Amino acid sequence: MSDLSRRHLLAGSAMAAVAATLPKAAHAAAPQSGQQGPGFYRFKIGNYEVTAINDGTWYRKLDASFVRNAALPDVQKALADAFLPTDVVPIPFTTLVVNTGSKLIALDTGTGAALGAMMPQAGTFATNLAAAGIDPKSVDAIYISHFHPDHINGIKSKDGSLFFPNASINVPEAEWAFWMDDGNMTRAPEAAQFAFKNSRRIFGDVAGKVQRFVPGKEVEPGITSIAAPGHTPGHTAYSIANGNKSLLYVADATNNPWLFVRNPEWQAVFDADPNKATETRKMLLDRAAADKMLAHGYHWPFPASGYITKTAKGYELVPAMWSPNL
Amino acid sequence: MSDLSRRHLLAGSAMAAVAATLPKAAHAAAPQSGQQGPGFYRFKIGNYEVTAINDGTWYRKLDASFVRNAALPDVQKALADAFLPTDVVPIPFTTLVVNTGSKLIALDTGTGAALGAMMPQAGTFATNLAAAGIDPKSVDAIYISHFHPDHINGIKSKDGSLFFPNASINVPEAEWAFWMDDGNMTRAPEAAQFAFKNSRRIFGDVAGKVQRFVPGKEVEPGITSIAAPGHTPGHTAYSIANGNKSLLYVADATNNPWLFVRNPEWQAVFDADPNKATETRKMLLDRAAADKMLAHGYHWPFPASGYITKTAKGYELVPAMWSPNL
Repeated sequence: MSDLSRRHLLAGSAMAAVAATLPKAAHAAAPQSGQQGPGFYRFKIGNYEVTAINDGTWYRKLDASFVRNAALPDVQKALADAFLPTDVVPIPFTTLVVNTGSKLIALDTGTGAALGAMMPQAGTFATNLAAAGIDPKSVDAIYISHFHPDHINGIKSKDGSLFFPNASINVPEAEWAFWMDDGNMTRAPEAAQFAFKNSRRIFGDVAGKVQRFVPGKEVEPGITSIAAPGHTPGHTAYSIANGNKSLLYVADATNNPWLFVRNPEWQAVFDADPNKATETRKMLLDRAAADKMLAHGYHWPFPASGYITKTAKGYELVPAMWSPNL
Repeated sequence: MSDLSRRHLLAGSAMAAVAATLPKAAHAAAPQSGQQGPGFYRFKIGNYEVTAINDGTWYRKLDASFVRNAALPDVQKALADAFLPTDVVPIPFTTLVVNTGSKLIALDTGTGAALGAMMPQAGTFATNLAAAGIDPKSVDAIYISHFHPDHINGIKSKDGSLFFPNASINVPEAEWAFWMDDGNMTRAPEAAQFAFKNSRRIFGDVAGKVQRFVPGKEVEPGITSIAAPGHTPGHTAYSIANGNKSLLYVADATNNPWLFVRNPEWQAVFDADPNKATETRKMLLDRAAADKMLAHGYHWPFPASGYITKTAKGYELVPAMWSPNL
């Protein structure tokens, strides 16, 4: 019997007098919100203002295929050690928007809410960008780490228009060469077809607008591209440096940190060239650890920035402390 | 010379033609915000909706007095290991507001923005509560852990009126007995006078409204008070339980976790009875670790909830992963 029908019964019975003395509120004056707070977080790198924008989380079913070279019970133990569920792997998405004072630059763009059926708790980038007070029209440049759909789909709105209409679109040359090559698409296994087709959907009709670059140089003042192949052929990391501060955006050099930062030899199903990806992962994490440099992982827990220390068997991510002030 | 005056000069000179070809924007279309995002975070404990409300951070100067029984270089090393500055200790403040579905309950109330001169980056509780959509008028009950100013001052607005006008005010009996006793105040050293006087400022004219309780029982459905003395004589922790979930609010049983969770034997200058505080700290952290229970520390990094694991020399705080959904 529901509370309501029980109360109706009471009111209509000899119990009415008793009912009148029961506590009056069946619900708090303030109803439960049911909503998380805005998913953005700001910090400074020198004079640059960086905003981390969350695009939600993909709770991917955990099966034996997820880590190619580790036994499922070991993977489950690693998740349990981090107090995470062992049936799904939480894979958050967090991009960076850098306001240099003279330019607004987005590093990756999120899922574009285009993968909703596969990941219903992702696709919040546009909402969180708006909550952060950033108008997509004022973004001057987009830099892409690689062509997986959760990084490039935010370039377009669902209607196919450019979500950042005034932004230059900058992509790694090797990434373009790989994904836009029809021969590669033909030779790719069925499971990879989606990413090839998706790259065409995003870039096909705006190809003339896309600027390709070879990583290894400064692409904007203080922002340097770093070749980081393995996850995909042209996967690219970025460093942001201003004043005496810097940040290393490792993009997808690691997925979930409790699996792949702690166990850098573990290889995720998403890595195209697992051995090269491992080599790149260690190279970037070594650099962050040696330089005590703030690092940001696209799939690390929001706000997704932290420091890296070396351990006996790998690395540890020390999340940057949340600060109420910039 | 400012960018503006340089541009004026250029425009008025033979360089005008050159200037016209320079990039047009001296500032990004979107100015830097300079503001952090709202400091609230929501999660569920069973059917209860819990909102963590940040009241900012006190950056306390680090000196040899801060940890009574550890050498300053050891304390500095512990901070450096957590990638924190070594000249100040960040001491964040994060309260909890629990919506049980039928009642809205606040655990501690923040600094009331009344300690601003001492801690200019604290006092954001009211702003963050509003950002979370919670009207102080709809709070039904306040439960206090102890009478230090950063926990009770939020009971009143700066004008002396009750900030939560409709809330019952519930305090631990032993805490009331200690701080409201004039003999104790007379005997207390000069440094402790402020906390005695402050307790009178907060509670003096509303004493009739204050409900005192002896910890060890359920104070609201699912919310149980736990005697946790040492930090202050009547310091009280709380557990929140609903469905098959629970949370242990340890309040000030530890201060900064990289110091006092990792090194539970270390004793902060704030602890009135350091040995009893150490005993209580271990009792609560042991319980959280044994039960794999979510724990919340008032002075832990926002959002201030996590899990506790035992290590060789103490404990480790594993921050709960930020979730975009409740």
